[in-house]
Amino acid sequence: MWVLTLEILVKKLLQGDKRSAAKAISIVENNSREKNQLLNLIYQHTGKAKVIGITGSPGAGKSTLVDGLIQEIRKNGLSVGVIAVDPSSPFSGGALLGDRVRMQRHANDPEVFIRSMGNRGTLGGLSRATNETIKILDAMGKDIIIVETVGVGQSELDIINIADSITVVLNPGSGDSVQAFKAGIMEIADIFVINKSDLLGTEKLLNELKMLIDTSKQNYGWKPPIIKTISIEKKGIDLLWKKILAHLEHIRKTGILEKKRYQNAERELFLILHDIFQDKVNKYTKTNDYTSLKEAMLKKELAPTQIAGRIFDDIITS
Amino acid sequence: MWVLTLEILVKKLLQGDKRSAAKAISIVENNSREKNQLLNLIYQHTGKAKVIGITGSPGAGKSTLVDGLIQEIRKNGLSVGVIAVDPSSPFSGGALLGDRVRMQRHANDPEVFIRSMGNRGTLGGLSRATNETIKILDAMGKDIIIVETVGVGQSELDIINIADSITVVLNPGSGDSVQAFKAGIMEIADIFVINKSDLLGTEKLLNELKMLIDTSKQNYGWKPPIIKTISIEKKGIDLLWKKILAHLEHIRKTGILEKKRYQNAERELFLILHDIFQDKVNKYTKTNDYTSLKEAMLKKELAPTQIAGRIFDDIITS
Repeated sequence: MWVLTLEILVKKLLQGDKRSAAKAISIVENNSREKNQLLNLIYQHTGKAKVIGITGSPGAGKSTLVDGLIQEIRKNGLSVGVIAVDPSSPFSGGALLGDRVRMQRHANDPEVFIRSMGNRGTLGGLSRATNETIKILDAMGKDIIIVETVGVGQSELDIINIADSITVVLNPGSGDSVQAFKAGIMEIADIFVINKSDLLGTEKLLNELKMLIDTSKQNYGWKPPIIKTISIEKKGIDLLWKKILAHLEHIRKTGILEKKRYQNAERELFLILHDIFQDKVNKYTKTNDYTSLKEAMLKKELAPTQIAGRIFDDIITS
Repeated sequence: MWVLTLEILVKKLLQGDKRSAAKAISIVENNSREKNQLLNLIYQHTGKAKVIGITGSPGAGKSTLVDGLIQEIRKNGLSVGVIAVDPSSPFSGGALLGDRVRMQRHANDPEVFIRSMGNRGTLGGLSRATNETIKILDAMGKDIIIVETVGVGQSELDIINIADSITVVLNPGSGDSVQAFKAGIMEIADIFVINKSDLLGTEKLLNELKMLIDTSKQNYGWKPPIIKTISIEKKGIDLLWKKILAHLEHIRKTGILEKKRYQNAERELFLILHDIFQDKVNKYTKTNDYTSLKEAMLKKELAPTQIAGRIFDDIITS
């Protein structure tokens, strides 16, 4: 295999080359030796793309919605990158044949780049790798980057650190929709989508959502709109895209976007600092001092909290 | 309010006092000043309880299953603690009235202690607080600790670090069940439960599961059994409990339990070390050196990866 030097890889990446992007993403996913150098080289070319999070339960129709959004974004003359961290997404290979075929048609559009992220096995954590992949798609010149995620757990809340605008996708009549609010969804949603809105229960869900929005504290003067869509028929997608644009404009105007980006940069810096620290910890675990302290801990003679201070001092002076 | 000293609190906790347990959990949840001292004091009294994870989608019937397990465990003369980190769980206050009433009957049993953990706002992270709460319930003498969690995201995979035995609850006919396997559920499940097994699609799901289990790599010679339950009618719960006990015995015999506990203790130690490090980072962020480096980073003159090394050196020599 022909090995590119990192400089050539980055040069081609900045020109929008898909193969170089794929290679760069592998570097961050595998936490390879060249990762930091790669990120250094592209850093000054990042920050231009807008990042859209699309989140909701498996089966809510997120992928079909994303498929429609790609079409809408392309119609507007913008380029788009998609990162699927949803294991049930056709983008990441986990869906029925029909869905996969539907996605396929974007494969030849040079202005569309789609990548799925493994939900496990990603060294250094999924949200980290996702964040770095966003930087790569940003540097390659994508105007809009869509991140599709699943679940109502911690990982979904992570998206708030990554996306500029978050759309939460719900379905009428699904038992978990109202319960999901309790997981903190209410607070992270900039836009609500009721997908499959031809199904029974749409008005009920709409009213519940309205009530919840009215009784919630409004973030930065933005009241989350509720969009009804039927993604499989491409209904409502144009309106959704308009609302996403409106929200992006709102956060730009009010300075929230800039503030968010600043926080994100600092959070990233802290993660790197902790990586450096962990390297030192890993080295220390190979010493005899560590072996005896660990033994005492495992015998319950000393609690982890008791030996941590001593180990810390040993590490930073070593 | 009458303030207990930490020593008295721990003494009463070790005697199984519920109010002291509640107070101790508040200390870890709020990351209070006394937290480390509390954990030091109870550490040598931990390690006896067995930790059971019950996980699955919202609405899968986990809480009703847990309710049935409590009854089964009590019938066997064992004491039980329950930690609900599922926001849709009646245990954590997020369910219909009927569910809550059903749970209520355990409230007066001195050998049952139930606690819900907030899904956010927990300083230091949810899985951390959950882990520390397990220690408290362990120290108070609970034989079995059940942790109920939701979702198919990162947070669910966290449970593998916490629980000795994991039961994954699925429903027939629910669209996400098969897709869920792809999120890594397959790898973390020690036992599968098909709940609501009177519904259409049970045999189909059973066969899919069997096939998946047969084609998966078996962990440590344990082949995950599949239990059909109807939790609302208490059907199959006795068999589930038997299988959980069988799995616990299997991992004890094979030494996996001990190995797991060792890894967990070390992981905990690392978390504490990173806390100490983060305190130092926080102090450093108040210096002028940091302000100018941060400015350069935000102006994209320097990448986070470029300044991290310098900041690290400053921090450990300060």
